[in-house]
Amino acid sequence: MLGAIEGGGTKFVVAVGTPDGQIQHIESFPTTTPEETMDRTVEFFKDKGVCSIGFGSFGPVDLNKQSPTYGHIAKTPKPHWSGYDVVGHLKRHFDVPVGFDTDVNGAALGELIFGAAKGLNSCLYITVGTGIGAGAVVEGKLVHGLVHPEMGHIMVKRHPEDTYEGKCPYHKDCLEGLAAGPAIEGRWGVKAYELGDDHKAWEFQTFYLAQALMNYILTISPEKIILGGGVSKQLHLFPRIREQVKELLNGYVQHPAVLECGDDYIVPPALQDRAGITGALALAVQALEAE
Amino acid sequence: MLGAIEGGGTKFVVAVGTPDGQIQHIESFPTTTPEETMDRTVEFFKDKGVCSIGFGSFGPVDLNKQSPTYGHIAKTPKPHWSGYDVVGHLKRHFDVPVGFDTDVNGAALGELIFGAAKGLNSCLYITVGTGIGAGAVVEGKLVHGLVHPEMGHIMVKRHPEDTYEGKCPYHKDCLEGLAAGPAIEGRWGVKAYELGDDHKAWEFQTFYLAQALMNYILTISPEKIILGGGVSKQLHLFPRIREQVKELLNGYVQHPAVLECGDDYIVPPALQDRAGITGALALAVQALEAE
Repeated sequence: MLGAIEGGGTKFVVAVGTPDGQIQHIESFPTTTPEETMDRTVEFFKDKGVCSIGFGSFGPVDLNKQSPTYGHIAKTPKPHWSGYDVVGHLKRHFDVPVGFDTDVNGAALGELIFGAAKGLNSCLYITVGTGIGAGAVVEGKLVHGLVHPEMGHIMVKRHPEDTYEGKCPYHKDCLEGLAAGPAIEGRWGVKAYELGDDHKAWEFQTFYLAQALMNYILTISPEKIILGGGVSKQLHLFPRIREQVKELLNGYVQHPAVLECGDDYIVPPALQDRAGITGALALAVQALEAE
Repeated sequence: MLGAIEGGGTKFVVAVGTPDGQIQHIESFPTTTPEETMDRTVEFFKDKGVCSIGFGSFGPVDLNKQSPTYGHIAKTPKPHWSGYDVVGHLKRHFDVPVGFDTDVNGAALGELIFGAAKGLNSCLYITVGTGIGAGAVVEGKLVHGLVHPEMGHIMVKRHPEDTYEGKCPYHKDCLEGLAAGPAIEGRWGVKAYELGDDHKAWEFQTFYLAQALMNYILTISPEKIILGGGVSKQLHLFPRIREQVKELLNGYVQHPAVLECGDDYIVPPALQDRAGITGALALAVQALEAE
């Protein structure tokens, strides 16, 4: 059995599952202090006999295996978590491989191994919710460089009618600052799910997300794009985003998948609400294989 | 000895070199029809005894080894070259491995193996000239997905004082449409190299390139960024671009290289004017190793 942890900023989801991506037993609890949260995590796995654990973490995290702070949460506004050594904590209790990455890189790997991008060599997973995060697999490998992708903060062109200043504390009107849940709420005064399908908000949302997807396509050319998070519940957005990506690229990328930009290219997570935890399971699979 | 071909839209550069990146003999000639240009290329290598050939090509190209048109030039406005089978042409004359990629992916690999990114696992090479092209290495591998990167065409936010409509035939005011050589000339009426260092043009150029680099950093997190092409001759641009990338990211990416954004992170090509042909040599090295 494999262990999986989806360590989010507001809740932790823990599960055990099989190497073919089946979740067998799942629990969740609120994210409090690191000690309390990690103790509860350890408690869950104690008698489960896992042979590997995957941890998809909220970020930023240190993923550089040469670094003395590998496996730690990096500087975060979340109280008490800055510098906390999550991998070390797990390693002290379980003598098994630990696969550690961002939650969104985990989700990308999960969709590649078990989900919408099964059998492919690359994919992009993007989630739009309280923030915008993305992970990617390129040439069969999760993308890491200096650090991990932080694609949710790219700059985008403003919609000509959008006067909202933007909500990102770092960049104000980057993609996340204009198109994540809090920006939608800040701009319109109501939560995204309260807006009707024909609300102007979705025109803005389509405009920003289509631009972002265009930029990602031009940069890493993913074979599949999985759009998850709260926004993926708004199924009416998918055809609009596909159409606008196609219009924006205007025939430039000469591959049928992009030229058509059909409903098999930009898709909701095949793993649905379990994209995150199944992604963590994929990290456990990968860690076991790497041994 | 290894063979290297930098197949550009206006000229072909051919060379032989050693596995450690030394170019021994180099020639160039104008790109005319594919038959004539490739015959001349074959002629050059005929008695050189090369054991592998690297071809860094103008794009778009088909790099999918499963595709029946692998190694062909894709649809291009360049007369006669659409669909031309360059790898097939070489294979008919030389029974050696052929490494084939875009010129900019080749240049990225060249800088990784022999140049500014030596010893690293990732880098981004971007060239700003008559167009804007970029290649990248992620986790030790050249980036390919559906196709190859076409990062020069990402969307960017317009400089508030820039009223130029943009020059890209596909996207009008994408990065290339606003910041490549023809856009500079179209906007100011003179060629880039004729503009003084304090011309307003460089403020715009810095604005667009810094935004693009920010987006690439957030997307693939390269360990080194190499900025080549005509613009890299404008050395005064480098400190300005570094400063603006740093300001735009505003401390968000918590890695010293990006936080400082110093003169060892965004750099001119170590291989200077030979970045392209040495990149092709790197493709030959890689093709030989893959055998």
